[in-house]
Parts: sequence; C-alpha cells; structure tokens
Amino acid sequence: MTKQLNIGMVGYGFMARCHSHAWASVSHFFDTGYHPVLKAVAARNDSKVRRFAEQWGYESVEHDWRALIERRDIDAIDICVPNDLHAEIAIAAAQAGKMVLTEKPLARTAAEGQPMVDAVEKAGVPNLVWYNYRRVPAVTLIKQLVDEGKLGRIFHYRAKFLQDWTISPDVPQGGQGTWRVDVDAAGSGVTGDLLAHCLDSALWINGDISSLTAMTETFVKERTHADTGKKQTVGIDDAAAVLTRFSNGALGTFESTRYARGHKAAYTLEINGEKGSLAWDLHDMNRVQWFDHSTEGRLRGWTNILVTDGDHPYLGKWWVPGLVIGFEHSFTHTAADFLEGLKTGKPAAPTFRDALATNKLCDAIISSGKSGSWVNL
Amino acid sequence: MTKQLNIGMVGYGFMARCHSHAWASVSHFFDTGYHPVLKAVAARNDSKVRRFAEQWGYESVEHDWRALIERRDIDAIDICVPNDLHAEIAIAAAQAGKMVLTEKPLARTAAEGQPMVDAVEKAGVPNLVWYNYRRVPAVTLIKQLVDEGKLGRIFHYRAKFLQDWTISPDVPQGGQGTWRVDVDAAGSGVTGDLLAHCLDSALWINGDISSLTAMTETFVKERTHADTGKKQTVGIDDAAAVLTRFSNGALGTFESTRYARGHKAAYTLEINGEKGSLAWDLHDMNRVQWFDHSTEGRLRGWTNILVTDGDHPYLGKWWVPGLVIGFEHSFTHTAADFLEGLKTGKPAAPTFRDALATNKLCDAIISSGKSGSWVNL
Amino acid sequence: MTKQLNIGMVGYGFMARCHSHAWASVSHFFDTGYHPVLKAVAARNDSKVRRFAEQWGYESVEHDWRALIERRDIDAIDICVPNDLHAEIAIAAAQAGKMVLTEKPLARTAAEGQPMVDAVEKAGVPNLVWYNYRRVPAVTLIKQLVDEGKLGRIFHYRAKFLQDWTISPDVPQGGQGTWRVDVDAAGSGVTGDLLAHCLDSALWINGDISSLTAMTETFVKERTHADTGKKQTVGIDDAAAVLTRFSNGALGTFESTRYARGHKAAYTLEINGEKGSLAWDLHDMNRVQWFDHSTEGRLRGWTNILVTDGDHPYLGKWWVPGLVIGFEHSFTHTAADFLEGLKTGKPAAPTFRDALATNKLCDAIISSGKSGSWVNL
Amino acid sequence: MTKQLNIGMVGYGFMARCHSHAWASVSHFFDTGYHPVLKAVAARNDSKVRRFAEQWGYESVEHDWRALIERRDIDAIDICVPNDLHAEIAIAAAQAGKMVLTEKPLARTAAEGQPMVDAVEKAGVPNLVWYNYRRVPAVTLIKQLVDEGKLGRIFHYRAKFLQDWTISPDVPQGGQGTWRVDVDAAGSGVTGDLLAHCLDSALWINGDISSLTAMTETFVKERTHADTGKKQTVGIDDAAAVLTRFSNGALGTFESTRYARGHKAAYTLEINGEKGSLAWDLHDMNRVQWFDHSTEGRLRGWTNILVTDGDHPYLGKWWVPGLVIGFEHSFTHTAADFLEGLKTGKPAAPTFRDALATNKLCDAIISSGKSGSWVNL
Repeated sequence: MTKQLNIGMVGYGFMARCHSHAWASVSHFFDTGYHPVLKAVAARNDSKVRRFAEQWGYESVEHDWRALIERRDIDAIDICVPNDLHAEIAIAAAQAGKMVLTEKPLARTAAEGQPMVDAVEKAGVPNLVWYNYRRVPAVTLIKQLVDEGKLGRIFHYRAKFLQDWTISPDVPQGGQGTWRVDVDAAGSGVTGDLLAHCLDSALWINGDISSLTAMTETFVKERTHADTGKKQTVGIDDAAAVLTRFSNGALGTFESTRYARGHKAAYTLEINGEKGSLAWDLHDMNRVQWFDHSTEGRLRGWTNILVTDGDHPYLGKWWVPGLVIGFEHSFTHTAADFLEGLKTGKPAAPTFRDALATNKLCDAIISSGKSGSWVNL
Repeated sequence: MTKQLNIGMVGYGFMARCHSHAWASVSHFFDTGYHPVLKAVAARNDSKVRRFAEQWGYESVEHDWRALIERRDIDAIDICVPNDLHAEIAIAAAQAGKMVLTEKPLARTAAEGQPMVDAVEKAGVPNLVWYNYRRVPAVTLIKQLVDEGKLGRIFHYRAKFLQDWTISPDVPQGGQGTWRVDVDAAGSGVTGDLLAHCLDSALWINGDISSLTAMTETFVKERTHADTGKKQTVGIDDAAAVLTRFSNGALGTFESTRYARGHKAAYTLEINGEKGSLAWDLHDMNRVQWFDHSTEGRLRGWTNILVTDGDHPYLGKWWVPGLVIGFEHSFTHTAADFLEGLKTGKPAAPTFRDALATNKLCDAIISSGKSGSWVNL
Repeated sequence: MTKQLNIGMVGYGFMARCHSHAWASVSHFFDTGYHPVLKAVAARNDSKVRRFAEQWGYESVEHDWRALIERRDIDAIDICVPNDLHAEIAIAAAQAGKMVLTEKPLARTAAEGQPMVDAVEKAGVPNLVWYNYRRVPAVTLIKQLVDEGKLGRIFHYRAKFLQDWTISPDVPQGGQGTWRVDVDAAGSGVTGDLLAHCLDSALWINGDISSLTAMTETFVKERTHADTGKKQTVGIDDAAAVLTRFSNGALGTFESTRYARGHKAAYTLEINGEKGSLAWDLHDMNRVQWFDHSTEGRLRGWTNILVTDGDHPYLGKWWVPGLVIGFEHSFTHTAADFLEGLKTGKPAAPTFRDALATNKLCDAIISSGKSGSWVNL
Repeated sequence: MTKQLNIGMVGYGFMARCHSHAWASVSHFFDTGYHPVLKAVAARNDSKVRRFAEQWGYESVEHDWRALIERRDIDAIDICVPNDLHAEIAIAAAQAGKMVLTEKPLARTAAEGQPMVDAVEKAGVPNLVWYNYRRVPAVTLIKQLVDEGKLGRIFHYRAKFLQDWTISPDVPQGGQGTWRVDVDAAGSGVTGDLLAHCLDSALWINGDISSLTAMTETFVKERTHADTGKKQTVGIDDAAAVLTRFSNGALGTFESTRYARGHKAAYTLEINGEKGSLAWDLHDMNRVQWFDHSTEGRLRGWTNILVTDGDHPYLGKWWVPGLVIGFEHSFTHTAADFLEGLKTGKPAAPTFRDALATNKLCDAIISSGKSGSWVNL
C-alpha cells in the first residue's frame, strides 16, 4: 500500500526546480512504497511563488517558511534557499518534527552545521543533504567497484570541478543567481559550492581524509554587490587547489575554480589502484572509464563503459541499453533512496551528520589557504 | 489561460512510458498554453493496464482502444502499440475527431500509411508521428546550422543506426519486447525500426532523396515464434545498407543493423558541406561535432559543442550550462512542440503526411534489397 | 652476416621520401640480415633529382629509369612515380632480374596490372606493392585478433577514407602533386587512391569479396589541366560508396571521397563479429578500439588500446609503452618485412599478385558506378 | 654549403637510441646547413657498444668517455647516461672545448648543475638539455598561441605526468633500465624524471614560478638493489603533487607518479586564460585541444586540432595533412633547432642555464615534500 508523503518546499530557484522534478517523477519509475505530493511551497515574493506553484502543481503557497513548518499536513521540509538560511530553517523544522532535507552544503561552516546535526538527531527525524552526484549511476558504479575490491590498494584519488562563469568582473556578488559569489550568503566560494561535491564523493568512495594543505585565490578582488549597488571586496575563494592524504594511505589532489575557460560543470574524478583505475566526467555523465590491469597485455586499455544497461545502478528503472539519462536523474535517485530509507528504516546517505564531515574539510581548506600550513583532521 | 488537453494512451510498453513521461512533465518546463492530463489508458490485459495507470497517474483505464476513442473526455489519442495496429486505431480516432499521435513508423508500409494520412487530413485533426530524434537539441542545432547555410553546398550525408541485441539465435520473434523481430507485427526489421529514424532526420535536414539502392540481409534465418512456440522463417531484415542520391546533389550512405557488437543504440549522422561539417552520435547525444573551414588554418579542427547552454535549442528550459539532459527529453520536446502547434495553428512536424515519405523510402529499400536495382522515388 | 641491398629509387616526390626514409632507417631498428643502401635515384629533372639525392644520401643519380635498371649494382627497383608509369618500369625491371617494389596501386587497371604480375612471376623476382597501412601496428593487431577468432563469425566490415583537399574548383588536374586528379595519370580518382587502401586491408583481414554495387560521383566536372592550361572534363571519381558481400557472409560498406570537409586522411575501419568488434582510425593511428562481449555485463564497453607496448606488433623495436610512432613507420615495417621475406624465402605481402585483386575490385567499382548494377567477382 | 658536425655519443641505452635517430635523420628533413655524422660512441661494455655502433652506423667506438672527449675529430658530446654522470662528463667536455648536449635533467640537483652551467659558459661552447617535449609540434603550437596572447590573462596552469611501471614491489632499484628507481643514480624519483618535463614546459610557456608547496610519497619502501642483490630502503619519491604560484599571477598544479594504473607516459597539460584554454596529452601527441571564447555562443566548444598541416610548427618538413608523427620526432626537432642555432648564433633552448631553473624547482619540491612548507624561489 503506497503512502503519501507531503512535501513542503522552501524556495523556487534552480535547485527548487531540480528537487520538485525529482519529487514529481520519482513514483513513475521507482516503487518505494511512498508517493510524494507537492503540497506547498514557501517564498516571500508572492507572484513568483504563485507562478512556481502553478508550474509545478504545488497545491498551495506560503509566504514564510515558518508557516510551512507549522502546517500539520506537511511531512517533509525541503530547503532550497541560499546557504546562510539552511541552519535556521532546518533546526526549526526538526524541532517541529518534520523530516528535513537540504540542498548542499549542509551549512556555511561546520560550526553552523553542528547544531543542525544535533537538532535532527535529537528530534529523531529523517534527514538528508542533496549531494546528488553520488547518485549519478556512473559514480554509483564506481563506488560499487571500489567496494568490491576491483582496484586493490588505492594509490591516488584525483578530483576537479571546473567552471568559467565568473571570469567577467561584471558578474555581481549577491542577488538571485549570484548569491554564490557573496561570502555572507554562501560561506565560501568554490570550496563550498564545487569542491564540496568532490569531497563528498571522495569520502564516500575512498574514506576519510586525514590531512590537507590548500592554495586559494580570489582573482577578481572587488565586485558590485547586488544589494548595495556598490563595489565591495569579494570575500569568496575564486579558486582552490588542495593536496590531501587519505587514511587508507592514498594521496589526493583536488581543485576547483570558476576561471577555467571552456569548462561549464566539469566535475571529473579518477582513482588509481594496484589492480586498475576508474574515472568519470560529469560532462559525459553516463560513462565510466575503467582500466583493468588483469586483462591480457595486448588488449589492455581504458574501457569506456556506457552506463545504460539494466545491470547498472538505477538503470533498470529507465530506458533500454544505449539511451542515456540526464543531470536531473541524480535527484530522482536521491529522492528514491530517501523514500526507500523511510521504508527500510536504513536512512539514505549523506545524512546531516555525514555531510558535516564535508563542511569540516571545507573549513580546513579555507584555513590552510590562508595559513599555508597542513591541517590535520 | 492554460487549457487542459486530455490524453488517451493506447498501450503500456516501453514507448508508452516514454510518451507518458513527456505528457506528465512537459508543463513543468514549457509554457505552451496547454496542460496535458493523463486521462485514460487502454490495453487488453487488466492487471497490467491498471498497474500502468496507477504508476503514471492515469485517471482511468479502458480494455479496448475503441472504448477510449468513444470517450467524449479524450482530446488526443496516442498510439504506442506494435506497427500493425497503427492504421486501424489512427483511422478510427481521426474519424471520431480526435487528435492522433502515433509512435513511429507511421505504418508497416506506405500502402498502409496512405489511408491514415487521408483520414487525418479529411477529419482535419492535428496529427504527429513521434520521430523523437529530431528534437534532441544537438540534432535540432544541426538542422538550424544547415538551414542558416553554415555548411554551404552539401556533398555527403551519412547515417547509421547500429544495435546488437538480436545476435543470439535464441531471441524469439513475436511477443512482448520482441515483436520487432516479427515481420507481421513490424512490417520490416531494422529498416522500419532504425533506418526510419535516420531517414526522417535526413529528409528534414537535407531534403528529398531521389533514388537509392540497397543491400539487406537476414543473418539468422529461423527463430522460435513467441505465439506458436515453433521455429519459423524470419521475415525481417537484420541489416540494411543503402546508397542514395539526394535532390540537392548530395550523396547519402545509410546503414542499420542489430548485429554490430558493442553498439546499443548507436545512431550517428554526419553531413559534409563545402564550408564545414557537422556530426552527431546518440550515445553522446548532448554533443555536436562541428568543423568550420573558415577558421584560421592553424586552429582548424572539429569542435566538440556541449549542447547545454541557454542559446541552444530547448536548453533554455532545462538546467544550467554543462548539465546534460537524457533520451526522454526528446519526447518532452516533441510534446511541447505539438502543444505549441495547437496554440499557433502551425502543426508540429512530422505530420502523418511527412512521415509517409519515410515509409516510402523504407519500402524502396526493402524492394531494392531484393532486386539489387536502383529505385527512383 | 648482414648483406647489403642496393636500392634504385624511381622518383623524388612525396612517396619517394616515405620509401627513402624507410630504407634509410630500417636497419637501425630491425635486424633482418639485410642492410639497404640508397645507391641511386632516377628522375628526368636534373636539379631536382640531385637535390633529392643529396638530401637523402643517394650515392648517384640517373636521368632515366632505364639507365637505373641497366645498372649492375642495383638490386631492387622501387617505383614512386604516377600510376601510369608503374607497368612499363616494373616489367622492364623484372625482365632485368631486379627485385621490384611499387607504390600502390599496382596499376591503373587490372588489365594493366596483369602483365606486371606475369613479368615478376616469370622472372621469379621478389616483388611487393606498398600498401603501407597493413603495417600500422594497430591494423596488424586487428588482423592478429581476427585470425585468432576473437570476433567469431563476422557480420559487418565497414571502411571509409575521407579527405577534403579537392573541394575547391581551383585545384588543377595533372602536374606535380595533383596528378591524382588526372584520370590519365591515376587511372581513377578516390577509388584507386583511397578505397584501394581500404580494400587491400579488407581482403587481408576479412577475405574475398564476392560481389559489390557502387555509386560514384564527380562533383567538380571541369578543372584546368596543368599540362595544357585549359579547362578539361574531369575523368576521375571524386567520391565512391560501395556495398559488398564477402565470401564469409559478412556485409561490407566502403566509402571514399575528397569532399568530406574536416577530414584530412581519415581512413577508418570497423569489424563487427559475434563475439566482439574492432575499430581503427588513421588519425589516431596508434589506437585500437576493442569491444569484448565476453566481459562481465556491467564492465562491457569499448576498450581504447594504446598500441605502444612491447607485445604489440612491431612495437618491441621502437620506444617504451605510451610513446607513439607515426605514419612513416608503416613504411619502415614494410621494408623490414620485405627484407625478412628475402631472408626466409617467404615473400612479404601484398605481392603483385595479391595487389591485382584490389585492382580488380577498383575496376568493378568504377564499372558498377556507371551501370548501377551489382558486379560478381 | 653544408658543414659536417661530428657527434660523440656517450651511452647506448634508450635515450642514446632516441638521440642517434635524431642525428641520423635530421638532415633528411631539415636544411640547417649542418650535417651530423655519427662519429663515435663511448661505453665500457665492449660487445654492447660495438653492437650499438654497428646498428646505428657509428664509425668508431671508445670504451671511456674521456677518450671520446680527447678526440680532435669530435665536435659535440651528447650525454645519454644516468644523471649522476652528467656533471663530470659535461664539465670535462666543455673544458675540452666541445659542444655539450645532455639528456635531461641537467643534473641530480641544482648544486650539481651549477658548475655545469659555469663550465659551458666559461668555455663559451654551445650547450643544450634535451627537454624534448617542447618540440612536440602540438606543444610548440601552444607556446606560439600563448605568446600571441590568444589566451589573455592566464589563471591556471595544470600538468601531470602519470606512469604505472613501478607498482610491483619486484621492480628493483639500480641497474640497466631501473637506475631511475635508485636515488644515487637518479637524484630523485618522479620529480626529476617526470615532473621535470612538466616544469620545463611550464617555465617556457607560462614564465617563472615564484613559490610552491609539495606532497611526496614513497609507496614501496624497500626494493632489491641490482648492484648488491639486497633489499634496501628506497630513496626516491614515487609520487609528487605540487601547488604553485606563477609570477604572472596564475595558479599551478602539478603531479607525477609511477603508480597511476593504466597510464604509460601520460604527460598532460592545460592552460586556462581569460579568452580561451589550451590542452595537450602526450598519448595523443599530435592533437591540441583549443577553446576559443570569442566564438559565437552556440558554436563554442573544445576544438580538437590535428597538428599535421604545413602551417603547424615543424610539420611543413614532414608528410601531408592528416598523417601523424611520433615520439622520436621531438628529438629530431631538437637536433634541427640546435643546428639552426649554430648557424644563426642564437642558441636553441633550453641551455644548461635554462635547465638549471628546472633543477631548482625540483629541489624545492623534494624539500617541501619533507617540510610541508611553502618554498619561495
């Protein structure tokens, strides 16, 4: 018997669209025992929130997230607003006994995230941070293969997330679409926005990071702030590069930037082990590159696996071999696993606690970028 | 003011899922003035049709497509059943004054398709054949660029659609999922199933084909029929290769097969013109390869365009640069354009009449494959 | 004990450079028991032939190939002049008891080539046609793998050779560098020049072709002739596309053109068998693409083999893994195998007789291109 | 009038083959006014040096490099022996008034390299270190484009050199072919062997590095030494990753390892600037990836330039468009430029002094890898 799960969405921006699509379509493909209902969406701007509700079929609107949390007919609060608002909303939602999901990162800093973890754990409510790239089937397949020992001892983990959208000094800081350039709203720049994805995957696939050193840079020092209309010092990191040591002895290199011309959302990762290697690129998100050292010498090479078959993670629910899926499916899979977790009682990861670890790494990167020293974790 | 459009689906298989997803999600992304409603689905098998209706949220079920057509609350009939049933359903639907959409090909043969064209034109009802690959944004971009004259005079058009799923002689003919191997249900093999896609795109992008010669082959001569349980002669073409001349003077080469090991849904096309070339591969469906001869000599090469930006066809409705879409989006775009056509009165292509041209080419290929002679069209 | 082999070169153009390099460097890498010596080069133009001799270290020059053939100190005649001169020179050289090697194709037509075969066989002299692409290590590896049965039954053989250098109508016919556009000098256009390579590889790898049908086209109908300075009808085929049936039951598709913008020397081939597939591209000549169907389902894909290891054909003689070789090495390998053949008495292929088969196919293509009919071979 | 340049080679290993091939073939392709003659080769092992001399056509052999240096008929000494011998030989050769070329790196450390620089400068003899990758045409093209300002302000420089040949703990240290694993012979591990190439290119293309921090690791702590037959502590760095700041404000990331399974000689580099980006991969050494931001939005992407045309660096001397060259050609180009430098009096780079800068960076990396601190240069 399928249960209804009433979603209360906070926000109507890009991420709210991604999450709404996931909630709206997950039952068409995954049989989790839960049927999400787009019950209500909250935002201050009346015309925008109404337009969003109409487009997505939300049954009602609220103009304050507090009102949403107070509603008895809402089961889960989904937070899709800038990072500086995550903590307050999540803590209030947990205290009201709601399930809480938030777009990543958990918070601007670990200090800000810790009370969020405390709140959901005290309330005993299901909770999740939408680090969606774990659930790109190719990435999930990599996790599977590493866990099966296909790579043997790991020597290297390498990840980058490259973009190029802030090269122009005319991009403002703050405001709709550009709050990610404003340190007050975002907490950090590429570290919390892009590297956080790389770090979440790395912790999941390759385990703990024990120490790191980082170089950070702000290429454009001043930008007009959307709120004040004035040139203000830019507080975020435009680029960050990190050297790490994992607890399993592997070396890690991480980099992210918004100044890599020609790269739009170029999240790439590669893992080198004794027996083989695996690599992935978000721009070709349905492919895994796999090098199997056990193959006969003459035939060894990188195998380009098109991850579209029924025996690949999540793919049995979609189309037929050769037909690819897109970015948004990673959210649908996250929703499916969250619902599955409700059914089984085994919560989908990353929980708030899991995601706090990523925030701690981000803090260490920002700190090391200033001090030039290695940081132990 | 958004109008409701009530959809009556015939069938619950793979294509019915694709179309249902398109109807269910199109309004979340495209503002066409129409909001499709999954009103009813028809199929004989009670438990299967009920399960499909529940999964997709169809409001009601029917057990006979005739009952569906008789319903006053249905605006459009969408046909997602084997090819041998297209004509009867479509003609009846048109006669009942319904809009009619059918999965491709229009019919098993042009002779079977002609009365379908006549019926929809006599009834004056909107009609469409779901040749979805036209609306993969990369393919649409290619059409745009060719129309703008970016290639100049066209010398070559080259397309292939390669699969490998029928290599095993144990694959049956007939039955759920394998009716495409049964000539009675399908009309032809790879020609109507795969080449038809290549031909539809070619006619759209490069204009009429004036003559052709073909080689066809059936590698596995006998297969067990799912209906009879007996070995029967295979009537379909397992592979087809075609040489064509286009009316614009270009040469064409086309090939399709289900015996190309390693290729799942490898629809590729390439066009070579005086000033440049364009190429596309369904396995990397969000990319266009573009060679611009006007570039400075040292810097000339094939440019790999990741078709994910707001100025690319359809992409302004989806995510942000670098984030790819999937196979099913081509159906969503088809639905969007169909609805847009209702609004503007300029019907979306390919209409039944447009798609009849593809059936005529398929007939010529099957015929030439037998005779060994060139066929003029 | 290494024996000296005195080479007499006829010609000083592009191919003479390729062959000279092969003769000059083969002993540095291959231990065949023979050491080629660049003894003499013959050509009519005194200053050009002297300059060529100096650059390459030829010990002497001749101004007539007949003089070269008469010299007692020449062991082997290597023919690097336009196709219309191959027969006369080769026959005279054979009659003089010289070993004879000629750049491909053997002759302009099979009728012209037959007496060449007769002459070398009657004289009992070692002979070879430089179809160099057989000895690109990646292609040789493909041959090895097919012979080992790695593909099982072959269904498809697909080859293309695409160029774009004659698109401009200003390219003349006839003359240095452009004699390939002159039907009198070349015999045919892309068929003898480019398709001949594809056909030679196909016969070698996949066996006899039993029948074919072809489409040929001359896009630019008139070009200035370098000899007369006048516009003359172009007699060559600018493009050719061919459908074939192989004796082993496989289907073949072949295409070549000089009107495929963006392709410089794009010889590509692909073979699909029951158990796997293999593909190659001259632009990435050190790579083989290999699909192994026996791999576990999740990990199946196209493996990109970088053919640079010691266990790859010829590579043990070159550098270390990962370091690629170039186009000219295919000639060095041909020279090495020719010399090895002298030592073992097992002649390197393709001999004149082997290469005559390719000329017969070219004749059939030109003929079918005119008649539109299938030709049995 | 062409002058003869008599080469005295020291060593007969892998690098001696590369250099010998360059000297032997350079005049066939490049008209520099100098004709190198393989005059003599020196090595202790009599049978091996004789065999090498015979294979390559060296006119005579010596069993001591000192004897070679003393010969009046030798113009240039070319050093192809392990790093620990470079300094003594080079200094003696310079003092004897010979031109001196040495395989890279200049020396094991900057301290060892400084007197080499002093010696050649005091003697006023032409000198060069064979950092061959500068003269892969694709890399040279990148340098050209950066110098022309095609990228604008540079934000990022990224290079890696990945191999996998020492993963097995059974690989010994010391001895023929494995002296690179012995810190006494090599000076360092991947830093001097692989990163040195990356650094040389970076300094050339992007200018000075002002500071860096590094992480180094030795994965296999003990290996049998070829000289003693005993397990000994490994003194080299198996892997190194480096963060740098360039004087022009760009950030750099560098990495090299011999533990990246699946990578044979994977030297890759990428540069991101305000107006565009450039990238290169040694495994596909004839290609440059180029992103031009000035292109119309819809058509922007990474252009894959096949560097084989006459207007590409060095390529006018080789074959025709589309036909690739190999690894060894980078040495031929180095020889050509060295000879050209003799003619023009403008020495080819990198001279000993240029290469000393790379040694200083390597020292800083090894030092930072131990201290964990940033090093200013």
